[in-house]
Amino acid sequence: MSLYYGGDYNPEQWDPAVWKEDVDLMRQAGVNLVTVGVFSWSSLEPAPGEYDFAWLDQVLDLLHDGGVRVDLATPTASPPPWFSRLHPEALPVTADGVRLTHGSRDTYCACAPAYRDAARGIARTLAERYHDHPALAMWHVHNEYGSTCYCSFAAERFRGWLRDRYGSLDRLNEAWTTAFWSQGYADWADIEPPRTTQYLVNPTQYLDYRRFWSDELLAAYLDQKAVIRDHSAAPVTTNFVFGGWVPVNHARWAAEVDVVAIDHYPDQAGIGAEEQTAFGADLARAWAGGKPWLLMEHAAGGLNTGGRWHTKEPGRMARNSLSHIARGSRGALFFQWRASRGGAEMYHSAMVPHAGADSARFREIARLGSVLPRLAEVAESRVVADVAILWDVECWWAMQGTHLPSSSLDYLAAVRSAHRHFWHADVTVDFAAPDADLSSYRLVMVPSLYLVSDEAAANLAAYVENGGQLLVGYFSGIVDPDVRVRLGGYPGAFADLLGVRVEEFHPLEDEVELASGGRGRLWSEDVEAVSAEVVDRYAGGVLDGKPAVTRRQVGDGTAWYVSTELDDRTAAKLVTHLVPTVEPQNVAGRPAESARPGAEREAAGVHPGGVLETVRRRGGDTLWTFFINHGGSEVVVPAVGIELVSGTAVDGELVVPGGGYSVLREG
Amino acid sequence: MSLYYGGDYNPEQWDPAVWKEDVDLMRQAGVNLVTVGVFSWSSLEPAPGEYDFAWLDQVLDLLHDGGVRVDLATPTASPPPWFSRLHPEALPVTADGVRLTHGSRDTYCACAPAYRDAARGIARTLAERYHDHPALAMWHVHNEYGSTCYCSFAAERFRGWLRDRYGSLDRLNEAWTTAFWSQGYADWADIEPPRTTQYLVNPTQYLDYRRFWSDELLAAYLDQKAVIRDHSAAPVTTNFVFGGWVPVNHARWAAEVDVVAIDHYPDQAGIGAEEQTAFGADLARAWAGGKPWLLMEHAAGGLNTGGRWHTKEPGRMARNSLSHIARGSRGALFFQWRASRGGAEMYHSAMVPHAGADSARFREIARLGSVLPRLAEVAESRVVADVAILWDVECWWAMQGTHLPSSSLDYLAAVRSAHRHFWHADVTVDFAAPDADLSSYRLVMVPSLYLVSDEAAANLAAYVENGGQLLVGYFSGIVDPDVRVRLGGYPGAFADLLGVRVEEFHPLEDEVELASGGRGRLWSEDVEAVSAEVVDRYAGGVLDGKPAVTRRQVGDGTAWYVSTELDDRTAAKLVTHLVPTVEPQNVAGRPAESARPGAEREAAGVHPGGVLETVRRRGGDTLWTFFINHGGSEVVVPAVGIELVSGTAVDGELVVPGGGYSVLREG
Amino acid sequence: MSLYYGGDYNPEQWDPAVWKEDVDLMRQAGVNLVTVGVFSWSSLEPAPGEYDFAWLDQVLDLLHDGGVRVDLATPTASPPPWFSRLHPEALPVTADGVRLTHGSRDTYCACAPAYRDAARGIARTLAERYHDHPALAMWHVHNEYGSTCYCSFAAERFRGWLRDRYGSLDRLNEAWTTAFWSQGYADWADIEPPRTTQYLVNPTQYLDYRRFWSDELLAAYLDQKAVIRDHSAAPVTTNFVFGGWVPVNHARWAAEVDVVAIDHYPDQAGIGAEEQTAFGADLARAWAGGKPWLLMEHAAGGLNTGGRWHTKEPGRMARNSLSHIARGSRGALFFQWRASRGGAEMYHSAMVPHAGADSARFREIARLGSVLPRLAEVAESRVVADVAILWDVECWWAMQGTHLPSSSLDYLAAVRSAHRHFWHADVTVDFAAPDADLSSYRLVMVPSLYLVSDEAAANLAAYVENGGQLLVGYFSGIVDPDVRVRLGGYPGAFADLLGVRVEEFHPLEDEVELASGGRGRLWSEDVEAVSAEVVDRYAGGVLDGKPAVTRRQVGDGTAWYVSTELDDRTAAKLVTHLVPTVEPQNVAGRPAESARPGAEREAAGVHPGGVLETVRRRGGDTLWTFFINHGGSEVVVPAVGIELVSGTAVDGELVVPGGGYSVLREG
Repeated sequence: MSLYYGGDYNPEQWDPAVWKEDVDLMRQAGVNLVTVGVFSWSSLEPAPGEYDFAWLDQVLDLLHDGGVRVDLATPTASPPPWFSRLHPEALPVTADGVRLTHGSRDTYCACAPAYRDAARGIARTLAERYHDHPALAMWHVHNEYGSTCYCSFAAERFRGWLRDRYGSLDRLNEAWTTAFWSQGYADWADIEPPRTTQYLVNPTQYLDYRRFWSDELLAAYLDQKAVIRDHSAAPVTTNFVFGGWVPVNHARWAAEVDVVAIDHYPDQAGIGAEEQTAFGADLARAWAGGKPWLLMEHAAGGLNTGGRWHTKEPGRMARNSLSHIARGSRGALFFQWRASRGGAEMYHSAMVPHAGADSARFREIARLGSVLPRLAEVAESRVVADVAILWDVECWWAMQGTHLPSSSLDYLAAVRSAHRHFWHADVTVDFAAPDADLSSYRLVMVPSLYLVSDEAAANLAAYVENGGQLLVGYFSGIVDPDVRVRLGGYPGAFADLLGVRVEEFHPLEDEVELASGGRGRLWSEDVEAVSAEVVDRYAGGVLDGKPAVTRRQVGDGTAWYVSTELDDRTAAKLVTHLVPTVEPQNVAGRPAESARPGAEREAAGVHPGGVLETVRRRGGDTLWTFFINHGGSEVVVPAVGIELVSGTAVDGELVVPGGGYSVLREG
Repeated sequence: MSLYYGGDYNPEQWDPAVWKEDVDLMRQAGVNLVTVGVFSWSSLEPAPGEYDFAWLDQVLDLLHDGGVRVDLATPTASPPPWFSRLHPEALPVTADGVRLTHGSRDTYCACAPAYRDAARGIARTLAERYHDHPALAMWHVHNEYGSTCYCSFAAERFRGWLRDRYGSLDRLNEAWTTAFWSQGYADWADIEPPRTTQYLVNPTQYLDYRRFWSDELLAAYLDQKAVIRDHSAAPVTTNFVFGGWVPVNHARWAAEVDVVAIDHYPDQAGIGAEEQTAFGADLARAWAGGKPWLLMEHAAGGLNTGGRWHTKEPGRMARNSLSHIARGSRGALFFQWRASRGGAEMYHSAMVPHAGADSARFREIARLGSVLPRLAEVAESRVVADVAILWDVECWWAMQGTHLPSSSLDYLAAVRSAHRHFWHADVTVDFAAPDADLSSYRLVMVPSLYLVSDEAAANLAAYVENGGQLLVGYFSGIVDPDVRVRLGGYPGAFADLLGVRVEEFHPLEDEVELASGGRGRLWSEDVEAVSAEVVDRYAGGVLDGKPAVTRRQVGDGTAWYVSTELDDRTAAKLVTHLVPTVEPQNVAGRPAESARPGAEREAAGVHPGGVLETVRRRGGDTLWTFFINHGGSEVVVPAVGIELVSGTAVDGELVVPGGGYSVLREG
Repeated sequence: MSLYYGGDYNPEQWDPAVWKEDVDLMRQAGVNLVTVGVFSWSSLEPAPGEYDFAWLDQVLDLLHDGGVRVDLATPTASPPPWFSRLHPEALPVTADGVRLTHGSRDTYCACAPAYRDAARGIARTLAERYHDHPALAMWHVHNEYGSTCYCSFAAERFRGWLRDRYGSLDRLNEAWTTAFWSQGYADWADIEPPRTTQYLVNPTQYLDYRRFWSDELLAAYLDQKAVIRDHSAAPVTTNFVFGGWVPVNHARWAAEVDVVAIDHYPDQAGIGAEEQTAFGADLARAWAGGKPWLLMEHAAGGLNTGGRWHTKEPGRMARNSLSHIARGSRGALFFQWRASRGGAEMYHSAMVPHAGADSARFREIARLGSVLPRLAEVAESRVVADVAILWDVECWWAMQGTHLPSSSLDYLAAVRSAHRHFWHADVTVDFAAPDADLSSYRLVMVPSLYLVSDEAAANLAAYVENGGQLLVGYFSGIVDPDVRVRLGGYPGAFADLLGVRVEEFHPLEDEVELASGGRGRLWSEDVEAVSAEVVDRYAGGVLDGKPAVTRRQVGDGTAWYVSTELDDRTAAKLVTHLVPTVEPQNVAGRPAESARPGAEREAAGVHPGGVLETVRRRGGDTLWTFFINHGGSEVVVPAVGIELVSGTAVDGELVVPGGGYSVLREG
């Protein structure tokens, strides 16, 4: 099959006269899939019970005639204004008790019965009408599930969820440590969401409210999936959005979608956008279990860096798309096809900008659209990775509370940091859950795994005993899934495995020196090396001479401990030290240095502008390598095979153009 | 007639024994007008329906006996506490739904019927009682209209206003682009104010809510004006307050006041306060259509710079007052006469400070009071200005939303910046509305006119075609009055006139170099010079070599485009380049350099502390020139005529004392 | 009697199996007093009216058997969740009108009748049951009184309090200056708490609301004290918490507690924590009228510096405890005995850390526990101090509003600054109320005493006339207790005494030079030296040559005025200049320099890390000196006597170990 190319298409914002031009331009641009109807509820049902499908019928027919397939959305992320008037009790309520008003999007509470009924209803109506439309490729339920609410419906559902989780109030009281501050519950009815309160909130209540919302939103999704499945066998999915405000456990949701789909919007303007792109794509692949997934939305022309839309430089849109595809996406889709004339996101970039199709942006879009069919052969292959970084969204949530010994502790930042060091070393990594089968990895990184279950801790110990190489970062293994400290010395669940014992943390304000010449920052710990070898030590400060980095041989494996946030240079050195043990697996039979221009770059100290990103895919005996050149100058790599973009044979040297990309097939 | 001098007088804060001393001191200080009763409702009507006018009768008689005239206020900006208890539904509600409590001021909703009735009632009562009092000079309705509310009364009035504006929901849906995010309205009743919502608010809804409030507050003002007019022919006004939070279109309100009156409080301590003073005064003159206006309030002794009251240095109060008068004010009034002993503004400076009349502050007040009568002859003359800067408050409001491509875009800052460059070049400018008759100006500046109507755009084009010189700043012409993008390439409404086409914006984080050696910041654009001449180019960065500044000859005129925010030095150079074409009109027959010490200063690089501010006034054949010396050293300017402050003839050289001022009459 | 040693003990968080180990460890650690039951309401009364005292019976018996006495708490600072469900009207309401939810602590309104009844009830039940338990040492009512509420119960109580204070509305209207902004009250029912309002709040209303809350919370405390006293003669106290958010006048409350008890948590990590410790301890001693008081809570291992728990270095916990004891505490107690496994404060350090008793932290706790009995003899002696700094919490509250001429004015910072300068000069100071008998002090400092009564001003004048040395800081004497300005020139109440007159303040943004070479910051004033001698002058700026520091001889005394915030070095010099007049009183017959190593240090410019803190205590003819060495190196001081920690005789030189402490007994 081909790779998907296209984006969100919102014809209801335009005069029908534009629709024909849209389809023509889509053909020019190589678009083969568009998402229709994401925010169309008020267009489809302008008044309660009064439907208008004529425009959608016409659009779907036009698209079909143009050879463009449709990812048909249910519009439930934005009920029409009339819905809020009829059901004000379904408007969401903040932790402060403010009931929000419509006039934006996502102004509903997913726990409100009237909303759930209406969502099922509009989904059923769409499924009934369009299940056999020839343009239909897949179903796109809702949009970016993630809104939380603190209303009384939510409270009631939360209580039910807690009953299911804990069975008894005794168990809940223990898990929540309610004996502290006299919070003991004697009646389920006494439990409320973590609304605004006088002082610090209970950390387990906070975590459970996120767990609950993940399950509740999943139930809302499954409601719709079920009514769609009653009428249609087409794949059903929803577009995952990632962020600290999102109470969704995507790794668990993945089992319920027919294809894992993500939206991806970096928030940095520099090379950080590329680091984030790789991070997001690798995470999506993890959720998909290593199988292909789909980039449902990204931006054609901009990077929104905290209130400023940085314009993507020429070529960058294509490189970012390629990075997603290299890392497993079945294509590249955008929000949105045509830039809106008005509304809150009128300056969100689009495939067809305000300037129209006679524009550099559209020409670049069309150019990429012409290349993708040549890469279709990679679609079902697997990304090659021998390193895994653990990711657990519950650990993130557990660290979002106000109870930690330092507000600088940041799970996402710690994981991003680990990922970034490998990305700059040009080593592709997988993300994995703490309880996943890790046996295929040569190296497993565990950044700040604060919360860990006994089972997951045992899984990691077994991995090492079976010859694995494990590197555990600071502030790991501290609490169990109830956010209760593992007593007797940190790092709790990992103390025995790592052979260390920590009596006290030492959160840092300033940096601390290491004996190796490196530096630690943000955090340090008073480490005793019980049965571990000391690799590096603190130098100066109150921990002077105490172990900072340790290593312990366990069976055939090794367990490292790094008790501080290393500076980038020291972290990169550590990665460089660890990588050779991994690398030969990646490019069988070829010297690592020839295959990894990244390593040369590292040695030459090339700045980020010179980054060449390399990703390998394997399918049967065939190996594909994506070379994405984020630097301004061409890079020459030793290569033999077929370069797919140009369709030419390569015998010795492949020239990757500055700002461009190449895809090599071997075997 | 004389110039007005005085301030807000709040006798109800003081023992009657003080009133006699007040009037004596007013006479000493040359005070001839005081505003009485601004916050007197609870003194005039201490309990519902129980009035106490005895004190006001006595005060007005005392003032009249002392030769001080009265600007009599309606006290409707602060209903008494009993009003809030009787009409809690009239207390204002925030966007979050918080109903405010009394205990400050302005705790009412102007849409609440009970408030509107009560306001009309107290205004009528005052008009009936005092319309023929001999002290009465004018009526001062309310105080600083500007408070917004989001209650259900406001919602209902908003719906009515929208019906009037749009006629049909179809038209509203188009204007608001409600097809985006499923916001389509099928019933007027579904429309709410832009209360707190889940995510980004609709930008047109936001703008319309400000437009609506301007009209609603105007209606509240007109209510009172009408009942006053029923009894009194004296001029009626209200004091305009300026700020981003104020939903008042003063340019439109100006038609409804008998004299445009403003309050002016700079928020900077350095020379910025003087820049802001000129800005505020020039804006007031624009609202007054070039005719005299009135500085109703400024501070006698302080500049409130974000939480710190910077004390005005000796002489500064007088210079600031003079700057207002030079720029068209019929006088200088202060808030307030006597500093309060208690209450929220007890440290707001006053004409009589806490220290009493035996103080440098009061002596300076009295000194200025003795000078003003000598300047009375300028009162009806007109300010001479050949440059106009466009100002449109709706454009400001349209740029206050959250939808812009960069949160650094700031309409007010862009306009202030333009004004500041001319102020430092000592060129007096007018402000003008985009649809005004501009034919008298030699140069028209258009800073970031984001929102512009077709008519206004045509007006500007005609101005250029008829020989005008127009300089359009970045991010102009983008949207129509519905906040809908003008498609086909930016700067939309001005693209043809300027001869440029922009496909994409490039909001900046860092500065960008220009080929001329200057720098741009905050913003840049990918400009194509379609039919324009390139004056300056971007140097380096992604726009390297692209046009930054362009110029196009159109008929007899010229249309410039500046696609970035220029650094001060470069902007000043551009102004210097443009000014000579303007200058000869200002001082007929005299070489520009002799008349404009500012130009010498510019050349000599004198720092802001050395600023000499010059403003010319013309009445018939007479020319007056105000010289206000903000520097510490005397400045000698070539001059022939009569210096009014000293009453002496000048024949060749006029010495303007350091920190002082002179007013020259010629002809 | 012995010194108290122990902490909050929360056995309800642990399995009964741990309790026995707890008591064994307490014995090891020398613990003799624990506070039990602070947050036990939901454990003691798990459901309405259903009590479970079995666990508390058992714990108290175990403690008694182990020789540990009990400070038994009433658990009223955290009603159980069921209470909130039964009495939602008793949940607190913010100024915005948000009703808080339980799930933290302190989620009650102290004005709610249901809460007050319930609090009395549980206190009575505990008093009835445990009044004769042999372990009972004292009663600990509630915890850290300080939560405010804005609900309608609070409003009603506020009105009653205002009636009591003012008697008539006329008097209230005058005190509140309600003539400003039309706030005149004609009915008590119109008065509301200072809830969120449109603009600046009335400053006297704000202050009165804090005064009211102090009295209301005191009434709530006295409710419980009364029911306890019905059954028990044991001392009753509550633990005072200090902070800007706390509406409690501890100086007035002190009369109602049998022992003044404080919690103390510095918020700095460096030597500032030691400065704050001395500050807090000296303030507690002032509240206790110079008599012994009790450190009820501090942290065994951490300093919470705005979101980061800085770990106390080895020895620091002991030094901090000693500093409290030296300054009058009858012992040192901690929150808490055993670190919680879960809950919002699970990372609050404890005597027994998560690592368990096999830890450096516990060993240090046990070491201190072994030392304290050797110091018991100091318990009833008095701290020697000849300098007083005035402290008035109402002055602090009066300066918390939004009405001041500079938001940088900060009463607490000004007082801390004065205290800090003496601490670094190693001079022990007392705090005193403005109306206290000051005759025993040689020097009295008056930092920013903005609000002062006539009586207090007269008290200070009499102090000087009787030979006292008084130093008044800027922004003093300005308003009376109604927050009404004293007219005629600042510093109002002190102008005559100081012989200066100030017409205007000059709040500073940048620093200002002084003729002496020093610098002022934050604030300056245009001082006229009417009858005072000028000690230092402003140099440069608008006040160039004007007096900055003045001195006036009054009878046998001297009155200084410092009109700016001096830089640290200049302030230290001034203290050094003033101190010799004080010092000989401290250490009779011994040259000051030998007794005050701090003075040598000052001369040698030793950095804060080298601070030796010295505190003297006197009891009859016996003099004890605490030497606390915050530096890393040993310090040798001339000394003769018995060193109590080691129990050895000293004859000439005492070596205070680096990071350690010594206590010398003489006479």
